[in-house]
Amino acid sequence: MAKNVYLFGDGTADGDAKLRELLGGKGANLAEMCKIGLPVPAGFTITTDVCTYFNEHNGEYPPELKAEVDAAMAFIEEKMGCKFGDKDNPLLLSCRSGARESMPGMMDTVLNIGLNDTTVEALAKSSGNERFAWDSYRRFVQMYGDVVLGLKPTSKEEEDPFEEILDHTKKEKGVKFDNDLTTDDLKKLVSDFKNAIKTKTGNDFPDDPNEQVWGAIRAVFSSWNNDRAFVYRRQYGIPHSWGTAVNVMAMVFGNLGDDCATGVALTRDGSLGTPGVNGDYLINAQGEDVVAGIRAPKRIEVELEKDMPAAHKELVETCQNLEKHYRDVQDIEFTIQREKLWLLQTRNAKRTGFAAVRIACDLVQEGIITKEEAITVKRIPPDDLNQLLQPLFDPESKKKAVSDGRLLTTAINAGPGAASGKICFHAVDAEAIVQKTPGTKLILVRRETSPEDIRGMAAAQGILTALGGTSSHAALVSRQMGKVCVCGASNLEIDYKAGTLTVGDTVLKQGDDISIDGFTGEVFAGEVETRPSEVLQVLVEKNLAPEKSEVYQRFAQVMEWADEFRKLGVRTNADQPGQASQAVAFGAEGIGLCRTEHMFFDHIDEIREMILSNAKMAREAALAKLLPFQRGDFEGLFKAMNGKPVTVRLLDPPLHEFLPHDEEGQKEIAKKMDVELDVIVKRVNELHEFNPMLGHRGCRLGIVYPEITAMQARAIFEAACAVKAAGIEVHPEIMVPLVGFETELANQTKLIRDVAQAVFEEKGMSVEYMVGTMIEIPRAALVADEIAKHAEFFSFGTNDLTQTTLGMSRDDYGPFINYYREHDIVPNDPFQTIDQNGVGKLVKMGVELGRKERSGLKIGICGEHGGDPASVKFCHGAGLNYVSCSPFRVPVARLAAAQAVLEEKK
Amino acid sequence: MAKNVYLFGDGTADGDAKLRELLGGKGANLAEMCKIGLPVPAGFTITTDVCTYFNEHNGEYPPELKAEVDAAMAFIEEKMGCKFGDKDNPLLLSCRSGARESMPGMMDTVLNIGLNDTTVEALAKSSGNERFAWDSYRRFVQMYGDVVLGLKPTSKEEEDPFEEILDHTKKEKGVKFDNDLTTDDLKKLVSDFKNAIKTKTGNDFPDDPNEQVWGAIRAVFSSWNNDRAFVYRRQYGIPHSWGTAVNVMAMVFGNLGDDCATGVALTRDGSLGTPGVNGDYLINAQGEDVVAGIRAPKRIEVELEKDMPAAHKELVETCQNLEKHYRDVQDIEFTIQREKLWLLQTRNAKRTGFAAVRIACDLVQEGIITKEEAITVKRIPPDDLNQLLQPLFDPESKKKAVSDGRLLTTAINAGPGAASGKICFHAVDAEAIVQKTPGTKLILVRRETSPEDIRGMAAAQGILTALGGTSSHAALVSRQMGKVCVCGASNLEIDYKAGTLTVGDTVLKQGDDISIDGFTGEVFAGEVETRPSEVLQVLVEKNLAPEKSEVYQRFAQVMEWADEFRKLGVRTNADQPGQASQAVAFGAEGIGLCRTEHMFFDHIDEIREMILSNAKMAREAALAKLLPFQRGDFEGLFKAMNGKPVTVRLLDPPLHEFLPHDEEGQKEIAKKMDVELDVIVKRVNELHEFNPMLGHRGCRLGIVYPEITAMQARAIFEAACAVKAAGIEVHPEIMVPLVGFETELANQTKLIRDVAQAVFEEKGMSVEYMVGTMIEIPRAALVADEIAKHAEFFSFGTNDLTQTTLGMSRDDYGPFINYYREHDIVPNDPFQTIDQNGVGKLVKMGVELGRKERSGLKIGICGEHGGDPASVKFCHGAGLNYVSCSPFRVPVARLAAAQAVLEEKK
Repeated sequence: MAKNVYLFGDGTADGDAKLRELLGGKGANLAEMCKIGLPVPAGFTITTDVCTYFNEHNGEYPPELKAEVDAAMAFIEEKMGCKFGDKDNPLLLSCRSGARESMPGMMDTVLNIGLNDTTVEALAKSSGNERFAWDSYRRFVQMYGDVVLGLKPTSKEEEDPFEEILDHTKKEKGVKFDNDLTTDDLKKLVSDFKNAIKTKTGNDFPDDPNEQVWGAIRAVFSSWNNDRAFVYRRQYGIPHSWGTAVNVMAMVFGNLGDDCATGVALTRDGSLGTPGVNGDYLINAQGEDVVAGIRAPKRIEVELEKDMPAAHKELVETCQNLEKHYRDVQDIEFTIQREKLWLLQTRNAKRTGFAAVRIACDLVQEGIITKEEAITVKRIPPDDLNQLLQPLFDPESKKKAVSDGRLLTTAINAGPGAASGKICFHAVDAEAIVQKTPGTKLILVRRETSPEDIRGMAAAQGILTALGGTSSHAALVSRQMGKVCVCGASNLEIDYKAGTLTVGDTVLKQGDDISIDGFTGEVFAGEVETRPSEVLQVLVEKNLAPEKSEVYQRFAQVMEWADEFRKLGVRTNADQPGQASQAVAFGAEGIGLCRTEHMFFDHIDEIREMILSNAKMAREAALAKLLPFQRGDFEGLFKAMNGKPVTVRLLDPPLHEFLPHDEEGQKEIAKKMDVELDVIVKRVNELHEFNPMLGHRGCRLGIVYPEITAMQARAIFEAACAVKAAGIEVHPEIMVPLVGFETELANQTKLIRDVAQAVFEEKGMSVEYMVGTMIEIPRAALVADEIAKHAEFFSFGTNDLTQTTLGMSRDDYGPFINYYREHDIVPNDPFQTIDQNGVGKLVKMGVELGRKERSGLKIGICGEHGGDPASVKFCHGAGLNYVSCSPFRVPVARLAAAQAVLEEKK
Repeated sequence: MAKNVYLFGDGTADGDAKLRELLGGKGANLAEMCKIGLPVPAGFTITTDVCTYFNEHNGEYPPELKAEVDAAMAFIEEKMGCKFGDKDNPLLLSCRSGARESMPGMMDTVLNIGLNDTTVEALAKSSGNERFAWDSYRRFVQMYGDVVLGLKPTSKEEEDPFEEILDHTKKEKGVKFDNDLTTDDLKKLVSDFKNAIKTKTGNDFPDDPNEQVWGAIRAVFSSWNNDRAFVYRRQYGIPHSWGTAVNVMAMVFGNLGDDCATGVALTRDGSLGTPGVNGDYLINAQGEDVVAGIRAPKRIEVELEKDMPAAHKELVETCQNLEKHYRDVQDIEFTIQREKLWLLQTRNAKRTGFAAVRIACDLVQEGIITKEEAITVKRIPPDDLNQLLQPLFDPESKKKAVSDGRLLTTAINAGPGAASGKICFHAVDAEAIVQKTPGTKLILVRRETSPEDIRGMAAAQGILTALGGTSSHAALVSRQMGKVCVCGASNLEIDYKAGTLTVGDTVLKQGDDISIDGFTGEVFAGEVETRPSEVLQVLVEKNLAPEKSEVYQRFAQVMEWADEFRKLGVRTNADQPGQASQAVAFGAEGIGLCRTEHMFFDHIDEIREMILSNAKMAREAALAKLLPFQRGDFEGLFKAMNGKPVTVRLLDPPLHEFLPHDEEGQKEIAKKMDVELDVIVKRVNELHEFNPMLGHRGCRLGIVYPEITAMQARAIFEAACAVKAAGIEVHPEIMVPLVGFETELANQTKLIRDVAQAVFEEKGMSVEYMVGTMIEIPRAALVADEIAKHAEFFSFGTNDLTQTTLGMSRDDYGPFINYYREHDIVPNDPFQTIDQNGVGKLVKMGVELGRKERSGLKIGICGEHGGDPASVKFCHGAGLNYVSCSPFRVPVARLAAAQAVLEEKK
């Protein structure tokens, strides 16, 4: 028979920190603290297995539980020297949740269990503090009513009945704070609360302490399945099957008088990682007062030594011991009852990215952890590195914006960082404004963005869109450019004609200031000040010396450790020299995806001429005009990469993306090209596609119009020869997109190699190069062995591969993906984290078949997944050679790749 | 060392009919005929291996070939008793191609080789016919110039230089036919032809007979790679790697005088299969005259006996022997030289579907073949069965339409059959006209069709579209409905406003007669008379007694044989009772796909109300109105199927398909629903999708709007109960579309089973049913084991599976698929014949994983591939339980399924 209840108290415990799965984090750590002799009130933990039983048996308990709890109660009574429900020296209990991973505030807690009209009097007498006793009783009835008897309102509109009564009483008495109420006021409140319970539930408040404690246990177990907890678990990937433990322990009191206090201590600062015990406390208060923010707390590191010198000394020493014991920064709940320190909880502290990096480095330096431990995902989640690269809002300025009521909305945080600037509704305007007045800060505000907006996006500080999610064009391009982006702000009404942006009653015009926080998705009217990232100043702007920035040094240290362990290469997706240099500064070892269509948009007139030409010769003439531009673009990129490999993807999007779809634009082109409007309209209609994603694009363009591939290949090889002639090493890798059939790649490979041969003969020199392909439709993965006959490398395009494998367009999945996430149909957004069972299976199949045919086949990934830590780990496991991601994700990918190796070792 | 040259002649031969791969069909049969003692002029065959060598070595021959050919020439000279190039008794030769499969007219032939200014005189003397000798010489120089020296024009615009001279000479001489020219005229022509060759090529015509024969051999090998041959092979799936053999044999002459003739005999009629030797012949002519149609040939069965009684007798006996020997109808080339019969070729005769069925049945009855042999694909290609089901144009009436110049264009033959009727441009008009005047024959003429046109399509005799290919909506629905359809007629200009259809100078108006031939893709102005199919009259219209129709009886015989052998079940795709009954008459064993959206279009107002409702309750109210209609539809279907299983697919298309996209339509709805136009416009815009194929459709609808699934499930179960209560067996199988995740199916399955339970309780009875899913996106196949946990059956939706696996939209692949076909990027249209390497691999994976999880899992296919013979065979091999196809494809699928079993045995 399994043990359901684990005791702890007075230097002994049934469990320890290793039993986290069974006892939850809180229970395991309480046991551990007892074992190492720290002052913890006696108590017991009911296991998570009981929660599982409870859930699977419609709220019933294992039959043996009752006896075990009875024995545990006796244990507490013995250790604490008082008796539960006793009319002289009553024991009071708390009942708290505690899952394997901390889920702060998501589940329920009941304090002061055991009070009734008899024990309250005993407590008054034993504590010598009648007001305290009645204050505790008032709190208990309220909390029990809310949590156990279900009177807590479920919607924000409803009022908590107890708060209503409390507010009413305070008004009546003309006092502001709860602790200004008299003992008589509190007695009246207890009576009023009980009446409210009777009215609302039809039942009396339970006076029996045993009934009380079992009610509380049931409420805590049940709270595992409340909505908040569900949402939280989904967000943080915690399985619903884990269940919570329940911790019942003796109450100690921080509200017995001014020699009492309660608080939360951190062993180091959670925001910046600065060493030293710190935290909040309140004199003469109970724990929830600190969290509830009813009174402004004091700072431990500032005043506690003065207020309670002995307790302070004990607390600091205990904190330091706990940090050493757990080998990580601790977040500790404590109560000081009549100058005696009691510990109620300890756990690894949550921290920002800044703090995570500093703490990891400091702990290594202090000899507490190894560098392998420092870079584990628990200590530095890779995504958190982003915080070190992005400008941030000045906290004071942001706080002010909130209190001024300038927070307009909170939408999807799609591109990290903070940006403030003038509203601009059109990409062309943004470009023109910045060209005219360099340094102008703009926020491009659009319903949605399209490839034509790219240069405007580059000109702006940040992008704000009303439509689209984390995989929308705006989001993708922003991350690649390292731009701040907030998208899917659906309550923005954008009126392009009027040039206005409306949110509720607020109307902003073109040129008005607006600020967006890409970390949080917040949108503010007006300006919020920003601070630049030091790492960027050192690495990219180069206006800060490395030795001047501790943040940079620690960042560099973590990166060095990561590179020591990782096996995956990390490349970047970039198509401009500046972007490429930035990525190299962040550690990119090559370009894994250079999209050539962005270059095309820079010469849209020539492209349009090419598209509108019906004859091959006319197309060739138009392409000849594009050749020098493309060649120049490639030269710039090859120089910036200085010998690192550059994977160039041939033209991919369907041709209609380059044509205007509105009459205005069509008229303009007709005029520019001196043809009838009808000709343009007809061609646009001809090129219209019902499902452009599955249409005439990728290599299908280069096959039907071989002159396009020929021009692009020529531009690449001419540029490579020129750069090599200038003494710079160059390694072009030409990538054919959207291949599904062996024959497609054979066709394009031959064409490319023929052009290479011709260029090399013309130039009297040659350059080493590779020809390979994207694997981005399921068929390509299924017949990867056939395709590998013609490919020197593969690059998995997991964006398109996800779209086709799941039959799910990332432009159109908005209306159902949120529902899917909320109802656990999918575990996460498949465009953010690779779908391992489906898409991942194809990736593995592609790797296996490809290498079966060609053993040394180089294989990478160049979808957005290349910058997602979980996906990077998958890529490591699948045996890929490298991942390629947007420049700002390069450090993230480096760290995730190292973690993959370390996790594999375990 | 391999043997390159195989001799035959005078009762002996190196090869025989079994060496078809090496000697080609013609060479193998010439050898076989020699071996069985039939009169074949001596000759030799150069093997297909030499062709392969020739192609792989830039037109060089194996070194040993020369000596082998020299020896073979000596063999012919000896057998024929004359000498090549001899100035007294010269041997003349023919040189013909001959591949493994017959490719009539695609490659080259040279006759009368060995003539020059010397041998022509000898031939004149030895034949005693100077005119014959010079006629042969004239023919030879022309043919050699065209074929070997490359003077044959490559485009239709150019004129053949020899024809030009010939025409000029005939005009000059005032004669109509070649054989009205005198010997002197012919001599002049030979000289003029030679001059033309000198002028065009700069070289003299080669007088050396040896140079002539090697030139001819090279020309025939080279002709394997000419354009026509390429196109032909692509169309008939003949591998380019096979190569052709070359047959060189002694000339015999049908043009020595009136005791000579040449012709083509069939052992039975190729059009209807009627027994008896028949065919064409010409007195005093060479073989190509029959084919070229220069003179009107005589019929063997009518006049040959009278013209040449002995030769006729020999020919008929020889034909009968050959048919018995080859156990199939033969197509025989023969020449009668001075009353002696010579055989130049025999091969299995091409035949129509009608003839194929009759011949197969007759040969079984005559004891020549077994029933297993009768239904092989060589004897009855499954597609040919269609001809027995469709109305046909009356041949005379069609011939007249052509000669009247009423053939407007030839486009894609998308729905077999022939239809004639009045032009109607709008589906609603078509429906209204036929409702008002039942029996009116209409042809619906549209740029393209959409789901809203379905009732109009049903009302029309046939559908003609300007856009779209064999997989367009028009084509798919036509095949399902058994409607005649011609689509992709791109030179039709349709002006809906003016109500006109323009092709070149012809302008037709609404109400004008038009006729379309779905077998050939021809479109005629005016009426062309049709004949109904007897099979349909017996099975469906039931106005013809079976015993009155031999065509029906043979059809039924073939179907009976097929059913005896096949293992695959055959179901139909149908969603209306009439359609369902028709399919059952054709042998369908159930419905494999009932699309419920067609029913929705019949109640479009209620659907639109549902879509436009933002609240669940309003949607439920709208759905409640739809419930009785759906229930009624299902009742009808269940009754029609009378106990056979019916697979009902829940709503699949994205909701925007039900809303009008033009302002006119939106205004109309706004008025009907009494809401502002803005509301409609906004909702239409909200629902717009960039890639609807990959959007909010399939089970994604039923999950986000569970009330839709609930209504459909209720309609199905209420209908099932009602039908069962009426004493009719019923087996509903509910199919959830577009499932990719196990969780999706789990969600829908639970919902459906809950509704079933509720309905069964309400009705106090229950019905056996199954819940399963479509496998139509790659992920579903990849995780089929997970999905099978919740599915009682799978049905592969290979249309969508092909679209997603290949990343290829069938609405958008037009601009590249033809190029792909023409350039051998793909072997065939993947929407017509399943892509075995890609999509097929997923199907096999899905079957294997699905059955691993659930061993008895029933698996079918319900894409258009279910009616394609090659795909049906694949399905058999993959272990599927059934295929489902449109009603008119049911017999095709039954036969193909039987052939799959028989081919497996071999």
